[in-house]
Amino acid sequence: MSAPYTLVLLRHGNSLWNQQNLFTGWVDVRLSEQGIIEARRAGELLAEAGILPDIVHTSVLTRAIQTADLALEQADRLWIDVKRSWRLNERHYGALQGLDKAETLAKYGPEQFQLWRRSFDVPPPVLADDAKWSQVGDARYANLGDAVPRTECLKDVIERMLPYWESDIASDLKTGKTVLVTAHGNSLRALVKHLDGVSDEDIAELNIPTGIPLVYKLGEDLMPLGPGEYLDPEAAAAGAAAVAAQGKK
Amino acid sequence: MSAPYTLVLLRHGNSLWNQQNLFTGWVDVRLSEQGIIEARRAGELLAEAGILPDIVHTSVLTRAIQTADLALEQADRLWIDVKRSWRLNERHYGALQGLDKAETLAKYGPEQFQLWRRSFDVPPPVLADDAKWSQVGDARYANLGDAVPRTECLKDVIERMLPYWESDIASDLKTGKTVLVTAHGNSLRALVKHLDGVSDEDIAELNIPTGIPLVYKLGEDLMPLGPGEYLDPEAAAAGAAAVAAQGKK
Repeated sequence: MSAPYTLVLLRHGNSLWNQQNLFTGWVDVRLSEQGIIEARRAGELLAEAGILPDIVHTSVLTRAIQTADLALEQADRLWIDVKRSWRLNERHYGALQGLDKAETLAKYGPEQFQLWRRSFDVPPPVLADDAKWSQVGDARYANLGDAVPRTECLKDVIERMLPYWESDIASDLKTGKTVLVTAHGNSLRALVKHLDGVSDEDIAELNIPTGIPLVYKLGEDLMPLGPGEYLDPEAAAAGAAAVAAQGKK
Repeated sequence: MSAPYTLVLLRHGNSLWNQQNLFTGWVDVRLSEQGIIEARRAGELLAEAGILPDIVHTSVLTRAIQTADLALEQADRLWIDVKRSWRLNERHYGALQGLDKAETLAKYGPEQFQLWRRSFDVPPPVLADDAKWSQVGDARYANLGDAVPRTECLKDVIERMLPYWESDIASDLKTGKTVLVTAHGNSLRALVKHLDGVSDEDIAELNIPTGIPLVYKLGEDLMPLGPGEYLDPEAAAAGAAAVAAQGKK
């Protein structure tokens, strides 16, 4: 098969902790009713656009897997191949995991708060191994041994995500398969940064809306032939603005 | 890793066509509300028994995939690895696909009806390629080319299922993984026939209830160390009797 290759990125929708305004990271929270509706809508958008994934890659977090399953069921593609990797997980939010965002903002002030949310290379404080929301000892990360993250900045996410892009996603694209990647705000920002060549500075301002498939056509070098296109551009713009506003509350 | 290895078989529950009393086979019908409840119950049974699948194998039919996803979500194991194969599909019911069971029984009589349902080596009449419920041309079977079945008897199912047991399921078991296989009445009867050494004659009387995990402990040769055990034996006995009674209506 030859170019153009088709890559579809999909960020999971509203989760139970989004509703409660808590930092989530690697905590395995499920979709809210709103998130379920968003996922089904994403499947409708794929079907309406005639974009038929041949394989789906997900993180190992339930909310991304639910999103993939609901969207694919809606698009009548639940039968396609599936690969999962922790490398597509959300950014590990360190000691912030499980904390209330508004309380954290009030306690540490807007500057520190925004630094933790959007700094390229400054991670939040480390989460203690015996903390309630630690993933140390979680069976799904057994193969990581002691390398399970205790906190991550976006730079860390890029460093652990890109090898998976190279090893698994790129090779599926090269066989001519339409590839769906269902993941999280920060793992998808890491991928978009790579594809669109966004600088370390500008990536802070890039927001990916939830539940709206983002479609890239890629050339032989697996780099975009043009800008990625959201299947519902109006909803995508509104969604990205809403994500950006979160940090300004 | 060494024996005993753990294999769990799970037959999908009630589908929309079960409710309507239609022959289904390879037609990609979804679970009914009752089937969804059965699948969640299966996940509860797994969790209560502390049986934690590391990988799930499914057919490429939506009702089996839905069952796996719902059960694993209930058991908090949605993140495990997934493999799918058409070799785990239900038996292709040939020209009976889409027909009403009661009407078919009335039209052809109980002897012919039971022969089609339970004969080891007599398939139903071939389904025409241009028939409404044919799978010829279905994208999910593109890799089969013109070998897409037009009808199957149980012997045919065994012949296409066993190679997948050898190539994929057995190798996952050998690595020490607890393997869940979520499939269909006849593909699971084919597997149980192999494991329990059931004769071609006796397999006609073997009925697998829906929605109740069947757990085997296997030795180094991947043959059972004892009888398979249902996680809810009372419900399993009632369910098997119900399946057997279907043919006697």
